[in-house]
Amino acid sequence: MSTNAVSTEQKGKEAAGAALRVATLTNDHKNDAVKRISAALMREQSRIEEANRDDLRRAEQDQLAAPLAKRLRFDRSKIDELTPGLAEIATLPDPVGRVRSARELDEGLILHQVSTPLGVIGMIFESRPDALVQIAALALKSGNAVMLKGGSEAAATNRVLHEIIRDATAEAGVPAGWIQLLETREQATEMLALDRYLDLIIPRGSNEFVQWIMRSTTIPVLGHADGVCHLYLHSDADLEMAGKIAVDSKTQYVAVCNAIETLLVHRDAAERLLPEVGAQLAEAGVELRGCEHTRRLLPEASTASDSDWAAEYLDYILAVRVVDSLEDAVEHINTYGSGHTDGVVCNDRAVAEQFMKGVDSASVMWNCSTRFADGYRYGLGAEVGISTAKIHARGPVGLEGLLSYSWRLYGSGQIVSSYSGADAKRFTHKELPTG
Amino acid sequence: MSTNAVSTEQKGKEAAGAALRVATLTNDHKNDAVKRISAALMREQSRIEEANRDDLRRAEQDQLAAPLAKRLRFDRSKIDELTPGLAEIATLPDPVGRVRSARELDEGLILHQVSTPLGVIGMIFESRPDALVQIAALALKSGNAVMLKGGSEAAATNRVLHEIIRDATAEAGVPAGWIQLLETREQATEMLALDRYLDLIIPRGSNEFVQWIMRSTTIPVLGHADGVCHLYLHSDADLEMAGKIAVDSKTQYVAVCNAIETLLVHRDAAERLLPEVGAQLAEAGVELRGCEHTRRLLPEASTASDSDWAAEYLDYILAVRVVDSLEDAVEHINTYGSGHTDGVVCNDRAVAEQFMKGVDSASVMWNCSTRFADGYRYGLGAEVGISTAKIHARGPVGLEGLLSYSWRLYGSGQIVSSYSGADAKRFTHKELPTG
Repeated sequence: MSTNAVSTEQKGKEAAGAALRVATLTNDHKNDAVKRISAALMREQSRIEEANRDDLRRAEQDQLAAPLAKRLRFDRSKIDELTPGLAEIATLPDPVGRVRSARELDEGLILHQVSTPLGVIGMIFESRPDALVQIAALALKSGNAVMLKGGSEAAATNRVLHEIIRDATAEAGVPAGWIQLLETREQATEMLALDRYLDLIIPRGSNEFVQWIMRSTTIPVLGHADGVCHLYLHSDADLEMAGKIAVDSKTQYVAVCNAIETLLVHRDAAERLLPEVGAQLAEAGVELRGCEHTRRLLPEASTASDSDWAAEYLDYILAVRVVDSLEDAVEHINTYGSGHTDGVVCNDRAVAEQFMKGVDSASVMWNCSTRFADGYRYGLGAEVGISTAKIHARGPVGLEGLLSYSWRLYGSGQIVSSYSGADAKRFTHKELPTG
Repeated sequence: MSTNAVSTEQKGKEAAGAALRVATLTNDHKNDAVKRISAALMREQSRIEEANRDDLRRAEQDQLAAPLAKRLRFDRSKIDELTPGLAEIATLPDPVGRVRSARELDEGLILHQVSTPLGVIGMIFESRPDALVQIAALALKSGNAVMLKGGSEAAATNRVLHEIIRDATAEAGVPAGWIQLLETREQATEMLALDRYLDLIIPRGSNEFVQWIMRSTTIPVLGHADGVCHLYLHSDADLEMAGKIAVDSKTQYVAVCNAIETLLVHRDAAERLLPEVGAQLAEAGVELRGCEHTRRLLPEASTASDSDWAAEYLDYILAVRVVDSLEDAVEHINTYGSGHTDGVVCNDRAVAEQFMKGVDSASVMWNCSTRFADGYRYGLGAEVGISTAKIHARGPVGLEGLLSYSWRLYGSGQIVSSYSGADAKRFTHKELPTG
């Protein structure tokens, strides 16, 4: 059956209906379903590879860029990479139903704040089909339903993976309809209008793509459009540390959102730091574009224009600017940055704190690389995305980002009339342990 | 100077600029500013009352409904009501800069999750001018800037209150531009487009008004359109408790969002419970509209139509339906409810847990009144709103709702290259106490 036979709205409705029931599954039940997904991927290896060959053939015909084509490949080694992650998900404690806080309002009137699933997550991602498997397992574990829209390059692979997951979880008794596949861009656009059924959209893709989604929907979006990240070297920065952290932040992996695009240097330290740090960056293959002051100290740097301060190169290029003060560095970052990740190298902790308070970004680093801003490195377990919004979840987001909470009030006959009027009872409002 | 001379976009820009500096104010500084607001209100009492008389005169000319006109009044007694609240805000610990969690990633590499302000809050509210003072003080305490749009009925009062707060906080050294007043509906509409500057919208007003705002902006909205709340009496419900809780949930204050609009009764208990509970409700002045089964037991009830199940009466009217099972009650609530507040009366805690897990609402109550769903009663301190969205904050929302967080990573020279490749260092990922 073609997944296109059913309207996007109908799929949203089915997902929302299923979500209410997925929310009440026990952890054992969900873990069993995740294990069955893992087993089914192994069992159906040849079917997956066959579909993937179709996609790869099409990629060749369409002359897809080599890096994209590479991310498209889904073979035994990809299944082997996914398996430990799925096994780990199946051993985690239930993220749903955790008591986050407990408070006695009065004797025998106890308030719990309890973690709940969000409901329906809409996930839009580009070529990598393994993302489909990961997000499906994470959504299920957190009691959510999902609508998935993968890249059209991976259409055949995604279709088979969706079928395998759908059937494996149906065998495990997970309510039908909990996982929905969308195949066309038109369907993705239709999904963005389903604010009645969807609770969160997680887009992964290019800057323009994510911006377009954020502008096109009133459904909350967890994501980031771009990563214009900075490293600021304060006047007292250690030279060795400055060079090491600048090179790592820029070149450890240039094509990612938490790599730096601009280096800021305090004027009092420019002469001491820039020649050596510049040489190390040049040696690592980085092209430098500097302000006037920078170019006096690094003649090999080309002239930075105003557009360089806002550029996300994602390449071996770095803008360099000398600033007059810590305040100017903070202002530059808040003006040109994207609120993603910014770092400072300095000896004085008070300076670091001032920087970290002043910079309005999801992650701020002191004396370490900006590249640490990542769910795995932060110890969040799986990463469902990095958000530069300030609502709900910010920075690298783990399983928590797929959760909400509800308030549960356990009473023994209490009514509000008793707590109002002349001889009103008083609330005790006593915090209780949650253990 | 007219506040209309400056464009709404310019006001948004000013607020966003000020927000970055308000975010870094110390608690002492913010507390001093809040105390100055309180003192200025006392000092300027006659100026406020004069402006308020203008509004009241206009209300009389425009034949404003009596309850609206009453809420408009702002005199010495209102100032006296506001003063203790402001004093309390000035004694609270700083909500900004709290370490929510701490984790060692490796030796000398410590990650903190730290509470931060959101940035700029857009608040749209109806007639009550005291709401302006409260929200301004709460926003300032939580390090945020605000854009306020009050009801046009209270225009003169709001203008004076805004000036007083602006000037009192300027004296205290709070960055200019942190509080912006909008006066026309056109400006409010313009504000909804400023997703570049605003981080959250909090609307208070009618169902249609809030729904219109939610549909009209991509800025996150904290609020609720309606409150179609339910009370379900299970088969084993205690008769006395059922009557007491039903009457309180319906009539303790009928015009509010957490009052019940529908009573559901398990069929096995209908004959035992309905005649007595119905009589108590009737005695409290409630008109009953029942399903067929209900009307056999309560002949005085009129016939409920399908639209009654979705109605938010906000009045002495209650829909009553007999259901076949707990599951049917949950399904009725998830179908017709608004995800606000729903309660169950039953003896068996397992039944209560099943109800609370199954009902997809911000607050769920067991053996107590739905009217408890309120920030003050929940012990959250000030209430900034009640949200039925699942993102960010849900149910009654306190000061926490005006906060985000950032990740601060404190290092000593660490780079990511050391944690990848052949002899990669391993992360320790050890939770640390936050105290």
